[in-house]
Amino acid sequence: MKVGFIGLGAMGSAMASNLIAAGHAVTVWNRSEAAAEKLGSLGAKVVHTPDRAAQGDVLHSMLANDQAMREVFLDGGLLDAMDPGTVHVNHATISVALAKQLAEEHGKRGLGYVAAPVFGRPDVAAAGKLNILVAGQATAVEKVKPLLEVMAAKLWPMGDAPERANVVKLAGNFMIVTAIESMAEASVLARAYGVSASDFLELMTSTLFASPVYQIYGKSIAEQRFTPPGFALPLGLKDVMLAQDAGHAAQVAMPLASVLRDSLLEAMADGAESMDLSALARVSERRANLDQRNKG
Amino acid sequence: MKVGFIGLGAMGSAMASNLIAAGHAVTVWNRSEAAAEKLGSLGAKVVHTPDRAAQGDVLHSMLANDQAMREVFLDGGLLDAMDPGTVHVNHATISVALAKQLAEEHGKRGLGYVAAPVFGRPDVAAAGKLNILVAGQATAVEKVKPLLEVMAAKLWPMGDAPERANVVKLAGNFMIVTAIESMAEASVLARAYGVSASDFLELMTSTLFASPVYQIYGKSIAEQRFTPPGFALPLGLKDVMLAQDAGHAAQVAMPLASVLRDSLLEAMADGAESMDLSALARVSERRANLDQRNKG
Amino acid sequence: MKVGFIGLGAMGSAMASNLIAAGHAVTVWNRSEAAAEKLGSLGAKVVHTPDRAAQGDVLHSMLANDQAMREVFLDGGLLDAMDPGTVHVNHATISVALAKQLAEEHGKRGLGYVAAPVFGRPDVAAAGKLNILVAGQATAVEKVKPLLEVMAAKLWPMGDAPERANVVKLAGNFMIVTAIESMAEASVLARAYGVSASDFLELMTSTLFASPVYQIYGKSIAEQRFTPPGFALPLGLKDVMLAQDAGHAAQVAMPLASVLRDSLLEAMADGAESMDLSALARVSERRANLDQRNKG
Amino acid sequence: MKVGFIGLGAMGSAMASNLIAAGHAVTVWNRSEAAAEKLGSLGAKVVHTPDRAAQGDVLHSMLANDQAMREVFLDGGLLDAMDPGTVHVNHATISVALAKQLAEEHGKRGLGYVAAPVFGRPDVAAAGKLNILVAGQATAVEKVKPLLEVMAAKLWPMGDAPERANVVKLAGNFMIVTAIESMAEASVLARAYGVSASDFLELMTSTLFASPVYQIYGKSIAEQRFTPPGFALPLGLKDVMLAQDAGHAAQVAMPLASVLRDSLLEAMADGAESMDLSALARVSERRANLDQRNKG
Repeated sequence: MKVGFIGLGAMGSAMASNLIAAGHAVTVWNRSEAAAEKLGSLGAKVVHTPDRAAQGDVLHSMLANDQAMREVFLDGGLLDAMDPGTVHVNHATISVALAKQLAEEHGKRGLGYVAAPVFGRPDVAAAGKLNILVAGQATAVEKVKPLLEVMAAKLWPMGDAPERANVVKLAGNFMIVTAIESMAEASVLARAYGVSASDFLELMTSTLFASPVYQIYGKSIAEQRFTPPGFALPLGLKDVMLAQDAGHAAQVAMPLASVLRDSLLEAMADGAESMDLSALARVSERRANLDQRNKG
Repeated sequence: MKVGFIGLGAMGSAMASNLIAAGHAVTVWNRSEAAAEKLGSLGAKVVHTPDRAAQGDVLHSMLANDQAMREVFLDGGLLDAMDPGTVHVNHATISVALAKQLAEEHGKRGLGYVAAPVFGRPDVAAAGKLNILVAGQATAVEKVKPLLEVMAAKLWPMGDAPERANVVKLAGNFMIVTAIESMAEASVLARAYGVSASDFLELMTSTLFASPVYQIYGKSIAEQRFTPPGFALPLGLKDVMLAQDAGHAAQVAMPLASVLRDSLLEAMADGAESMDLSALARVSERRANLDQRNKG
Repeated sequence: MKVGFIGLGAMGSAMASNLIAAGHAVTVWNRSEAAAEKLGSLGAKVVHTPDRAAQGDVLHSMLANDQAMREVFLDGGLLDAMDPGTVHVNHATISVALAKQLAEEHGKRGLGYVAAPVFGRPDVAAAGKLNILVAGQATAVEKVKPLLEVMAAKLWPMGDAPERANVVKLAGNFMIVTAIESMAEASVLARAYGVSASDFLELMTSTLFASPVYQIYGKSIAEQRFTPPGFALPLGLKDVMLAQDAGHAAQVAMPLASVLRDSLLEAMADGAESMDLSALARVSERRANLDQRNKG
Repeated sequence: MKVGFIGLGAMGSAMASNLIAAGHAVTVWNRSEAAAEKLGSLGAKVVHTPDRAAQGDVLHSMLANDQAMREVFLDGGLLDAMDPGTVHVNHATISVALAKQLAEEHGKRGLGYVAAPVFGRPDVAAAGKLNILVAGQATAVEKVKPLLEVMAAKLWPMGDAPERANVVKLAGNFMIVTAIESMAEASVLARAYGVSASDFLELMTSTLFASPVYQIYGKSIAEQRFTPPGFALPLGLKDVMLAQDAGHAAQVAMPLASVLRDSLLEAMADGAESMDLSALARVSERRANLDQRNKG
């Protein structure tokens, strides 16, 4: 198929490269061109404005956040430049409110819209093993399925309404951050009684909690290794707040999300802006003044 | 070895039966005698007072809580009835404060004391596949290791101070309850947008959170099946409060534990006293008034 | 002075009528004209578009929220229609972000901008006894002081930066909602032990907490009288969220605000949308299932 | 009347001195005798064991906490040494559980028991202006009323069951700590935007919150003056935890109390053990890293 791809960060690049490898004709655009050139060397056609990437049958986008989506698709006029019948597959983690608005704006213009947020880090994306949530009109979904299958270990259909895929993505990220805060608080308790974080977390993450999320972030906490970020802490805060916004719009109170938000803010105030989500552990440690105590 | 075992609930019975099967001479006592008779039929010697079970080389106990421990060992005088040199292996989930006190009281009387709380449900205990935390004086631990290995998939040494094993057990149970509350809040958010709890939780528990705790409790939440209890909700509340007590004694604030305590109390007030821990999900649902809405 | 006033709800009308009574030439505009006519009968000149009200020396506005402010002043073009040198006095409780943006937009156009949010209910406004926070450039503040003094028991200068007055207003409203939640939780505890809410709250609000906020909302809680709203619950939720937003922008975690947000959301889900803020008490009661219990 | 008084801290001494001044024959005992001698110089009879103070018609006690009460009255045998018909008036802030137990133990021995916890600091006690909560059997209450009136601005009857007075006292102290945390969080928000804590708190405590609690603790926060303690922070933590215990026993969740507990623990870990309750403000400040920022 003739496919466009815009937004070539670590995730987008890995996903687009799989489309190329699968034999699709991929046209790419990215704000900073270096990333696009790299895909050019893999066989993509590189263009210099996003509308040029949107001329195919399907346009994938993996932009950073609501603001980038608005700038390119709404304020930047990309939606108006697309041909009716084109299907836009949006992989970004965006707000439920924007998801609804985008569905409406695409509909008005006769464009297809599929929300397809993903679970998986860049290495998983590169391996074509993402878990991809898929929601949108059946015909549009049907059309893009072969493309998604190239990138995915499994597709998880979430029905007609695109925002459903987004709310599931946000709920999942909320669960990830909760798992990290849980390890942070529990391991500070253990440490206060003389058990090392690594002894404690090795036990937990190889038995009851032997799953990827706990193992990846548990290792960072045990080793107090918070840079470079795998999942940047400010993005985690953004996602927790988007989950809260979705909760607010639907009158769903989420007390754990409130704790996460406050702990993440405290981490930011303490300088974790360019650290990994696992740096939440620094907040628990600071609360208990563990550092000072051990010196004393 | 000549071994005693007191406290024959579902867990204790399964553990004692493995000791019998491994060829040890096991003497058992239980408050209600039916459970003891059952082990008698497997080859145990049944006695009618706890001191009679405490005449061997090692005494295991798996009593319900702090109060039962105090009644039998301290107020009931069992400690005073034991021979110096005997090692007591305590498998119960008890407070850190009592763990310290017991270590002291055993020491005074020349008795060995090993804290050996376990992770695993009765079926895991029956299969001899528990994860057992072990803390106590090296000589005492060395002596009882062969007995513990009979019951365990793996032993997790936690050092000399018995209370360390207890604090790790409490920290682990805190993480379990957090995982449940996390699934509860996230699945209500998903449901408010029309995604079923089972679709949402199947995704989560077969990908990012593919571990026993999430799968077991996630299934209960998805199916809204809260009886009979696997892990009774009031016991979960007790353990969260013991984790908070341990935190208080060491000046460690645990904001997630506070949320769990309040949600569990709310569950109790709403009639979940004889339900499973997964009934926490009822609280999230009630907060969002989801039932009423779907009717409306 | 020649003064305009737009936004004539209960508060705005009371404030504008005091300006008229003090002898100022007041031109009024309101979206729904009935409120404007009423002030016309007191001597105001009624106009049918907001720009006509903005021709004087000073323009007061008391609109409902950020959205109304944006619609009238930014998207609606009112700022562009004002004469350089005019001072705009904004009494609304708005976000810190919008306060900053408005200060900038006024500055660009040579317009004065004074943030002057108020504490006090409509009866206090009618009596000219408001507490008014005032922030903005000294010259602009100086010019409007005589007008503000007509409405106020006291002016509280907050410096040059207009958003400071707004953040103080939000922080104050946060304290109000906290006081209500505090009475709600405490009186349910007392009731669970057989002490009536009115006995408990009479004690508290006539001794340690003998201040207006506690007395007004305490009375509503004691009498379970939640309609008509004095301070509507959804507005309280809005203000708590604006305080959280201000906290987020400045990396200030406010754990009490998080509890308030969740309790208010729960109140909304339980049907308190058109009730008074004091209906927070229904949430505490529901959490403890107090109603059911007393029946049982 | 012939009256005994035991427990002569700052509060107890002030209260006992008013009984002396009113012409009652007062016998006093205190663990450390210096305080007793001081009352001796005002006319009290000083004795060296508590049972000697318990020979009159009425025995007042104002001991520090549950532990001190248990040591003197239960384990120390004072209850057994009292003459049937004597009425014991307990002014201490104790747990609801102990209040119930004491009521029962007094009843068994034919002793009267009145719970009479007080609101007011030592200077208020000295002026005889306390607010005294009173609960107990009507005949016992009637008998001690003249004594209580000597110490009180007002008596607040709370019915027959002594623990009701205690739960009201705990609920009141919970409200005090909430008010402090509320000022702490709000003033850090204001400070983050350049408004000084003293400007902010002067406004709040002279308008909406013009009541003793806000004024006393608000002043400490504004001046960052946390020693010497008026209400010691560890006692505030104790009382919040007793309120939570009372909530637990009655299945009443109190989310604000949970926040207070965690903030107080964090204050303790940061060295506030010998500071005033108002030192809660240090925790909010630290969370926002305000100190560091202002240096930066």
